[in-house]
Amino acid sequence: MRMLDLIEKKKEKRELSNEEIKFIVNGFTKGDIPDYQMAAFLMAVRFTGMTENEILNLTLAMRDSGDVLDLSRMVGLKVDKHSSGGVGDKTTILLAPLVASCGMPVAKMSGRGLGHTGGTIDKLESFPGFMTALPEDMFFDNVEKHGIAVAGQTANLAPADKKMYALRDATATVDSIPLIASSIMSKKLAAGADAIVLDVKVGDGAFMKDLKSATDLATEMVTIGRNAGKQVTAVLTQMDQPLGNAVGNILEVKEAIASLKGKGPDDLMEVVFALGSRMLLLGKKVNSLKEGEEMLKDAISSGRAFDKFKEFVEAQKGDSSYAEHPENFPEAAIVEDVYLEDEGYISAIKAEKIGHACMVLGGGRAEKDDVIDLTVGCVMKKKVGSFIKKDDAVLTLYANDREKMEQAKAEVISAFTVTDEVKKPLEMILGEV
Amino acid sequence: MRMLDLIEKKKEKRELSNEEIKFIVNGFTKGDIPDYQMAAFLMAVRFTGMTENEILNLTLAMRDSGDVLDLSRMVGLKVDKHSSGGVGDKTTILLAPLVASCGMPVAKMSGRGLGHTGGTIDKLESFPGFMTALPEDMFFDNVEKHGIAVAGQTANLAPADKKMYALRDATATVDSIPLIASSIMSKKLAAGADAIVLDVKVGDGAFMKDLKSATDLATEMVTIGRNAGKQVTAVLTQMDQPLGNAVGNILEVKEAIASLKGKGPDDLMEVVFALGSRMLLLGKKVNSLKEGEEMLKDAISSGRAFDKFKEFVEAQKGDSSYAEHPENFPEAAIVEDVYLEDEGYISAIKAEKIGHACMVLGGGRAEKDDVIDLTVGCVMKKKVGSFIKKDDAVLTLYANDREKMEQAKAEVISAFTVTDEVKKPLEMILGEV
Repeated sequence: MRMLDLIEKKKEKRELSNEEIKFIVNGFTKGDIPDYQMAAFLMAVRFTGMTENEILNLTLAMRDSGDVLDLSRMVGLKVDKHSSGGVGDKTTILLAPLVASCGMPVAKMSGRGLGHTGGTIDKLESFPGFMTALPEDMFFDNVEKHGIAVAGQTANLAPADKKMYALRDATATVDSIPLIASSIMSKKLAAGADAIVLDVKVGDGAFMKDLKSATDLATEMVTIGRNAGKQVTAVLTQMDQPLGNAVGNILEVKEAIASLKGKGPDDLMEVVFALGSRMLLLGKKVNSLKEGEEMLKDAISSGRAFDKFKEFVEAQKGDSSYAEHPENFPEAAIVEDVYLEDEGYISAIKAEKIGHACMVLGGGRAEKDDVIDLTVGCVMKKKVGSFIKKDDAVLTLYANDREKMEQAKAEVISAFTVTDEVKKPLEMILGEV
Repeated sequence: MRMLDLIEKKKEKRELSNEEIKFIVNGFTKGDIPDYQMAAFLMAVRFTGMTENEILNLTLAMRDSGDVLDLSRMVGLKVDKHSSGGVGDKTTILLAPLVASCGMPVAKMSGRGLGHTGGTIDKLESFPGFMTALPEDMFFDNVEKHGIAVAGQTANLAPADKKMYALRDATATVDSIPLIASSIMSKKLAAGADAIVLDVKVGDGAFMKDLKSATDLATEMVTIGRNAGKQVTAVLTQMDQPLGNAVGNILEVKEAIASLKGKGPDDLMEVVFALGSRMLLLGKKVNSLKEGEEMLKDAISSGRAFDKFKEFVEAQKGDSSYAEHPENFPEAAIVEDVYLEDEGYISAIKAEKIGHACMVLGGGRAEKDDVIDLTVGCVMKKKVGSFIKKDDAVLTLYANDREKMEQAKAEVISAFTVTDEVKKPLEMILGEV
């Protein structure tokens, strides 16, 4: 078998066999297939697409390129959750303990990643002492004892995907639904859960800008998962403005804590309940989404969810006193409210710009080895649909550098659009696959 | 400027500026742009194409990546000729001295290349002593003194194209008309002629299998040339069977010598006259194609063409006694006639298979450093339209190895199709751009 012939075949939109796809994935991972041939192949895929069979085989070959977790030693159905990423998305931090407090075990691998803020793993490290590089035994023990563990992805989880993604990132071949879907699902399948709830974000702050492409991606991922014998559901959620109010690592952790205590913003809680009820349903803890939602709400109002969160932080060696006293988290040196010149209804808040402002402040990573400032970011005081007067602050900025602060300020101001017409709050749940 | 953004732009079919194309060509040639990014770019071009402006700018950037010959120190118009390559194509060997004998200077760079037989340069080296690596002074002196010089391409003629072609060959990105056209024309423009006659082959033995794609390629090349200020004409010629009778290096040289003495096969001479008359017309030696064709025929019948050929061989230090006595060229050890089982009219001879048989015998190069056996090949005794009986040999094979001989024999036999219906000889000139 020659890679040259396989590029040719894909270029002509002929279906590759499972053996051919394995040859490509394994050859590239081992370094037998050079980057330039893989780059040409990926660009050909970008243009000709892949069949359902090809996508499944690609996903499984990437999954099998490294460790595949065996969660079967633990009793019951294991349900995982994945978000395609957006601005202010702190969902996992509250959803994991919330669902665990309903008696459903959560064994989750999470990423750091590049972006406007750190990933879930970075955010959890806001708690002094919090361990995310869990030894395998501790990971399993915690799930068995506490019903919850959230660990950083091990280096050997789908290494083929890691190498392929780095090449895609450098060759403008990221925007291919078969490649995105197989990349995400290879890691989810390697993480070993029986069922997966996918949160596919739609809007200017998400990778998928419109409902059509988000639906295509969701459908592709659900198809892969089901073809691989898993139960999978995808929810399409709003990302045309930041999710919740906080954007920035510690700021989001604080919002997650408040949410577990029943003080979460409506839009965030709507997404959390939509995802959580589906996790409980797939995990057979409830018989309907409505029942699931009630169980989640009860877990919050009873305090069980918050208790589970503290238990979770402690089980991973974090200092849970910060959960009781979030005011003890370090705060940025410069805290300043931002005002607009306008009066009227906020009709749009470009999530992309809010996220970028947080990046400017030092809250995210542009390169893999960048150090994140956990304290910076912003907290929205007004969202789409709010009526504002000239002396109403629309958000508060948290910065450690005056110059970056001014740059971020200009950027967040430009994110807002204000009109005279009444504007309703945005719908949060846009669809389901 | 970042290569990543330019791949993105091309992928989205947006037009690249001249500066952007120069950045890509120069960056890749210098090694600043890695192979994997260039491979992704080339595959994107393969799918989205290029505009007329982009193609011209790409061609000029590749031309300017190395030496550009200045032929202006020589008096008069200089006309070049290029063939897109086919099986049995010995045209340059007789066309160059033929045209030169009509008083039109020929200063030609020619390639070795990969393929079923060697290139023009390899074939000319059949003459003991023949120099193809001509120092620049000798090249110009010969043109001035003898009206003819044919030299191997210098390493520094369009080096960007050379590097890019090697990558295209390894990444299945050869089959892109903008890339093929700019590759050919960058070298032609660097070779410095004022006018260019292009011979674009069409058929199963050519790169372009059908008239539509050959016409597209011809149109693209003519457009580039004219946009670069040159006079350019393209002739589309038949390559559904080998051109002339001989396929193989020395065998083709012998056929070229016979042709210069007036004993050329009809199909070969028709192509030679079509190309030659256009060269004379573009070079303003004649006022019509008809006049050109008469001048060429007269040069042959008067012996001037053959004399010019001997003068040319001697001027490049070759032993011209072989032209007088071609029987002195070394001959292959095994010479065998091939018969078919059939009786009837030959309706097709797959040129591709005849060429491949020559390759099997050792007459061509698969890799750049392969050594060519100049003596092997075949000579057609029957062509499309011939009526054959069972005891009529259809061709003669020349081999130096019994096993390869048998393999080649099976292949050439499978190249023929014989039918009961009367079949006319193939049309040679299929169009003009």
